[in-house]
Amino acid sequence: MSRPVGDGVRLDDLPLREDLRGRTPYGAPQLDVPVRLNTNENPYPPPPELVADVAAAAGEVARNLHRYPDRDAVALREDLAAYLAGSTGVPLTAANVWAANGSNEILQQLLQAFGGPGRVALGFEPSYSMHPIIAAGTRTEWMPAPRREDFSLDAVEAAKVVAERRPDVLFVTSPNNPTGQSIPPEDLREIVAAAPGVVVVDEAYAEFSTWPSAVGLLDEFGDRLVVSRTMSKAFAFAGGRLGYLAAAPALVDALQLVRLPYHLSVLTQAAARAALRHADATLASVARLVAERGRVVDALSGMGFQVVPSDANFVLFGRFQDAATVWRSYLEHGVLVRDVGIAGHLRVTIGTPEENDAFLTASEEISR
Amino acid sequence: MSRPVGDGVRLDDLPLREDLRGRTPYGAPQLDVPVRLNTNENPYPPPPELVADVAAAAGEVARNLHRYPDRDAVALREDLAAYLAGSTGVPLTAANVWAANGSNEILQQLLQAFGGPGRVALGFEPSYSMHPIIAAGTRTEWMPAPRREDFSLDAVEAAKVVAERRPDVLFVTSPNNPTGQSIPPEDLREIVAAAPGVVVVDEAYAEFSTWPSAVGLLDEFGDRLVVSRTMSKAFAFAGGRLGYLAAAPALVDALQLVRLPYHLSVLTQAAARAALRHADATLASVARLVAERGRVVDALSGMGFQVVPSDANFVLFGRFQDAATVWRSYLEHGVLVRDVGIAGHLRVTIGTPEENDAFLTASEEISR
Repeated sequence: MSRPVGDGVRLDDLPLREDLRGRTPYGAPQLDVPVRLNTNENPYPPPPELVADVAAAAGEVARNLHRYPDRDAVALREDLAAYLAGSTGVPLTAANVWAANGSNEILQQLLQAFGGPGRVALGFEPSYSMHPIIAAGTRTEWMPAPRREDFSLDAVEAAKVVAERRPDVLFVTSPNNPTGQSIPPEDLREIVAAAPGVVVVDEAYAEFSTWPSAVGLLDEFGDRLVVSRTMSKAFAFAGGRLGYLAAAPALVDALQLVRLPYHLSVLTQAAARAALRHADATLASVARLVAERGRVVDALSGMGFQVVPSDANFVLFGRFQDAATVWRSYLEHGVLVRDVGIAGHLRVTIGTPEENDAFLTASEEISR
Repeated sequence: MSRPVGDGVRLDDLPLREDLRGRTPYGAPQLDVPVRLNTNENPYPPPPELVADVAAAAGEVARNLHRYPDRDAVALREDLAAYLAGSTGVPLTAANVWAANGSNEILQQLLQAFGGPGRVALGFEPSYSMHPIIAAGTRTEWMPAPRREDFSLDAVEAAKVVAERRPDVLFVTSPNNPTGQSIPPEDLREIVAAAPGVVVVDEAYAEFSTWPSAVGLLDEFGDRLVVSRTMSKAFAFAGGRLGYLAAAPALVDALQLVRLPYHLSVLTQAAARAALRHADATLASVARLVAERGRVVDALSGMGFQVVPSDANFVLFGRFQDAATVWRSYLEHGVLVRDVGIAGHLRVTIGTPEENDAFLTASEEISR
């Protein structure tokens, strides 16, 4: 391969924003390892009927690839509203729902509309590491607040912090990534009631939890509450990139002012609708993963690891003298787990029984 | 349908950013009209072989929908580099190319990296109306500079303005949307040489122009030049949402700091690669559209309209006492054209011969 044009130019030669200098791109290593348990993917591939349905739907919409997509993605939003209404019991319509290329784009649009320069977003750390990164990307000041030592959220303390610091946007993650705990609705109500700005409840892993969704609070707090979701995890649709949210219709209207027009391709809209048609089959994996989570937690505890209680499809465990060294030990055993930057801990995604066996075998050898 | 939850909340009740209050969302009316010539789409549907290839590719990648996509979209970038190298004669590799969900997302990432609060973007108006909107979305100050009365760009004057105002990001659109003219390379070189910041040459309609691409200047101006492209127009891929750019590898590295991880779905990557495999068939429409453009321009001129010379797949024409009224007259004739907000003018996309006939018949009646 010839040398690329312009390869004499260095990053430092470019007029990059000062606040980006010296940073490294976000992303877990994409390594070719037999057992990949590092990005909380659903280990079960889509069933053949869903694969065929996606192919058929793609072929159908491909005939009109020369035309722009429905800018408002109405049919998809109707389907998402029907799913969310069915699973929460809350009567939602397409007007309550917005969709984007992954929940990251949902969160970016929320911060473009309600955050930005001169505004503040607050989150309780450790939590989803993209929250501060997307805040930085939209020039929203990031204000971290602590969780308890055991990573659970003290609602009384959290409501106090929120009332004092008055963030324009508040992130509450339930279940929390990378620690796994959910927030009981009565605790959440207390925090939302104290919030002067927009509250984003990030429910990326909600389907794995038995706690009710924050969607149940929308009727009461429609003037501030947003519940964000993703099809990446329970729906096994990480490759399809579909995030969505539920909120009051006026909040969905607000996002139209910042969304890029035609942001969702006809293929994304069609494939996500196909995946929703097969929701029963895909979501059947959730019960299997929850059962395996119990098995993994018990086994790890039996080996003497400290395991953080989890309502999600992953488990945070420790404690290690040096998590980075243990991460490499797992890699040498052919198992890719995640070093999420919490001292003494690693995060493992719940995989298939065979993948979990490989992880537990490695864990046993590492624990010796 | 039941009333949506939270429908008592009004937009004014939400803590929206002040600068967004009172705005309306970007977007041409998506009306169901027999002849739609308003969004510069390619009127020719993808050939059946391409449709079949997209369906097959979608079915293939759908088997792994539960896994995240290649975050760096390397295979797609290699294909885009090969296409662009082939059509420009400039030796580009994947390291020179970046891709996103439409060129709007490309431009947004560029402004996140090189614009933003405290920085200025300059463009020569009238031009692509998304440039100032994306600037606003990234809180970049927008500084408009004028074109000549006939909408062409005075390179000497432009270079002077750029040297004086020193924008952090400069947009130069060639061919310019919505007016249609290209910038000769020697003029462009003069402007780029005068620019202290990043220069984005927006070549969304380049395939319809006989002027050489700005990609030819990358070797000389790799420290500042970016050429943005889209598959929406010549490639008839508006529904697939694929924008891309060519630049020095260091500039592509810079964008990794602001891109949302996994922004391009496996379906987008696979469908775009399928479309590139059929480039010869799709791009054959370009010659047909250029010939039709000539016919439409001649006919309009013959009817007494003033037509702006165009290197793109659209034509700006006038002059009208009241463009909005004439726009409605076209609509009553079943033809949807675009009121782009330039006094006395309307923009029409070049369609199929039949669509152009319908437009010209309506024009004749309107011109009487």
